[in-house]
Amino acid sequence: MKLRSAILQMKPYTAGKPISEVKRELGLDDIIKLASNENPLGCSENVTRVINELSTQVNLYPDASNFELKKELANQLNVNPNQIFLSTGSDSIIRAICSIFIEQDEESIMGEVSFQRYEDNTKLMGGKVVKIPMKNHGLDLERMVDSITDKTRILWFCTPNNPTGSMISKQELLSVIDRIPKDVIFVMDEAYYEYVDDENFPQTIPMLDKYPNMIILRTFSKAYGLAGLRVGYGIASEEIAKYINAVIGPFDVNLIAQNAALAALKDKDFLNRVVTLNREAREYFYSEFEKMGLEYIKSQANFVMVKINTDDKLIFNELLKKGVIVRPGYLFDMPGWLRVSTGTMEQNKRFISALKEVLA
Amino acid sequence: MKLRSAILQMKPYTAGKPISEVKRELGLDDIIKLASNENPLGCSENVTRVINELSTQVNLYPDASNFELKKELANQLNVNPNQIFLSTGSDSIIRAICSIFIEQDEESIMGEVSFQRYEDNTKLMGGKVVKIPMKNHGLDLERMVDSITDKTRILWFCTPNNPTGSMISKQELLSVIDRIPKDVIFVMDEAYYEYVDDENFPQTIPMLDKYPNMIILRTFSKAYGLAGLRVGYGIASEEIAKYINAVIGPFDVNLIAQNAALAALKDKDFLNRVVTLNREAREYFYSEFEKMGLEYIKSQANFVMVKINTDDKLIFNELLKKGVIVRPGYLFDMPGWLRVSTGTMEQNKRFISALKEVLA
Repeated sequence: MKLRSAILQMKPYTAGKPISEVKRELGLDDIIKLASNENPLGCSENVTRVINELSTQVNLYPDASNFELKKELANQLNVNPNQIFLSTGSDSIIRAICSIFIEQDEESIMGEVSFQRYEDNTKLMGGKVVKIPMKNHGLDLERMVDSITDKTRILWFCTPNNPTGSMISKQELLSVIDRIPKDVIFVMDEAYYEYVDDENFPQTIPMLDKYPNMIILRTFSKAYGLAGLRVGYGIASEEIAKYINAVIGPFDVNLIAQNAALAALKDKDFLNRVVTLNREAREYFYSEFEKMGLEYIKSQANFVMVKINTDDKLIFNELLKKGVIVRPGYLFDMPGWLRVSTGTMEQNKRFISALKEVLA
Repeated sequence: MKLRSAILQMKPYTAGKPISEVKRELGLDDIIKLASNENPLGCSENVTRVINELSTQVNLYPDASNFELKKELANQLNVNPNQIFLSTGSDSIIRAICSIFIEQDEESIMGEVSFQRYEDNTKLMGGKVVKIPMKNHGLDLERMVDSITDKTRILWFCTPNNPTGSMISKQELLSVIDRIPKDVIFVMDEAYYEYVDDENFPQTIPMLDKYPNMIILRTFSKAYGLAGLRVGYGIASEEIAKYINAVIGPFDVNLIAQNAALAALKDKDFLNRVVTLNREAREYFYSEFEKMGLEYIKSQANFVMVKINTDDKLIFNELLKKGVIVRPGYLFDMPGWLRVSTGTMEQNKRFISALKEVLA
């Protein structure tokens, strides 16, 4: 078989185990999953209502233009609907961006510990990623921008960064932004935007006019609780949005996903409850980790990285036996750490109690 | 901006207008859409039940391995689950196939009047399509195979062919299949497979062992009535399936779509009702077209092409004013023709009656 040479480098995605599979394997009944940054409060009741209403109409194609959803997003974000693009989660938008900007042997630059899909999709286009070491567990923007060469097409600024939870401050961004050449794209991947409460987080949308080489990514998977429906979106110049819209599949966001996202956007009470719980959960984790003498990374997202100073794969398995699923750090090139998503306070307490037992 | 050169050739997809938009524009209340080959019977009641059950759980990621759905498909099709791949409709699988096999300047071969997405996705990879003229409104397999060169990577055999409805017979396929080089992929796109009732249609799955360069595509969008949920699938050798699975997004088929497809697979009664109605509808269209003296193409799918011998764009608009949406032939490079999807018998009669009025 004659394959594109890039294909031989592709590895299938390693997803967190579904609860049903873990239950089956370990014969456990009561399991909590704090591994995939899912929303512990479920989704808005408006979303559930809309899904039930549409459950007899799935024979109809979705609206290829995403007309109503784009209109509502544009209103809420104060941009033009033509600046918006939507697809099957941010994954699919990251792929589209690579397919537009990365030719064979060109490069993108990312943090050493950041979202894996930047690398996969750069490679798919025959490009390669340059990984820049982290600085205090955050992205080293200075060094990322200093590393730009003639081959660089994209910089991936994940903020808050998955999996470290660290953010890029306004000052950090402004100190490098004018050194990014106009023909290099920089992607502000703000999947965890709604959870941010640090005042120094930069508001990027108003900066789009001045920086037409910026692309902002957001998602309905996290704070809006729609991970199962796959709706990511982005905002950019009308020109870039036009290219992305020409490249993504016309029906990527399915009928139920489109309407559920619209319903979710209109329920700000749910969003507030989610953000409030998340803040309480992070503070609880911090205080417990401090009592246990464990180092952790302050997070602006819905997960926290904690250093357990021992084999994370072993601890992961021991927690699993107690019915608690987290993500071991070795998967992110951070051996000796665990990433734990925030859950309900009951789940958070169960995790802490299991962790204490396992580390003892 | 530095874009990949291929991107400048990409055009956004032109979808059929959603009913709500047509209603708004024309101030009409009662509209029927026979334009997108959607299922007039909706979907299985099992599907509706599963969607309602999952409507509070959309905060959870789908199973990235599609474990249960692949298992059921493998059972029903008598293949290994490792031979199956799933994504957001066939669109997304066609894209994955191009990304695996088409390098810059390489080629794929398709019929002149066939599914547009083959061309779009070949171009996206920097390749080009060679379009072979139709023979009696069907694919000219002889000439397609004769046109293979060193640059050819993929042949697109759409059967039944969208938009003509014609099929490739067993004899036609067998007469060329051994002349296809082993390093050229041929894709049997069988999106309308369930509607076929011609005994000469080849059963391709048992041929996979002998022809590991064959890829078979099917979908839940048509006979299963899940167009709105976006679930396409395919069957190939384990090796090809492995590459496709490494390239498609891990969560492409969302939580509701995965479970709805599984429920749909288990309701053969619904499928039988769909196929029976479709056969009745096709026969009704044929007999009415004959009475009207209109040429048409015999179809093995859920739509029929009819030659109206006049400006199809004009007739399309006149039908629209009467609340009947079809697809005008100029969109498929078949000016002077209309493509009409089969509907309920009531809808079919309304279309015929409107067509008579408009042509009079």
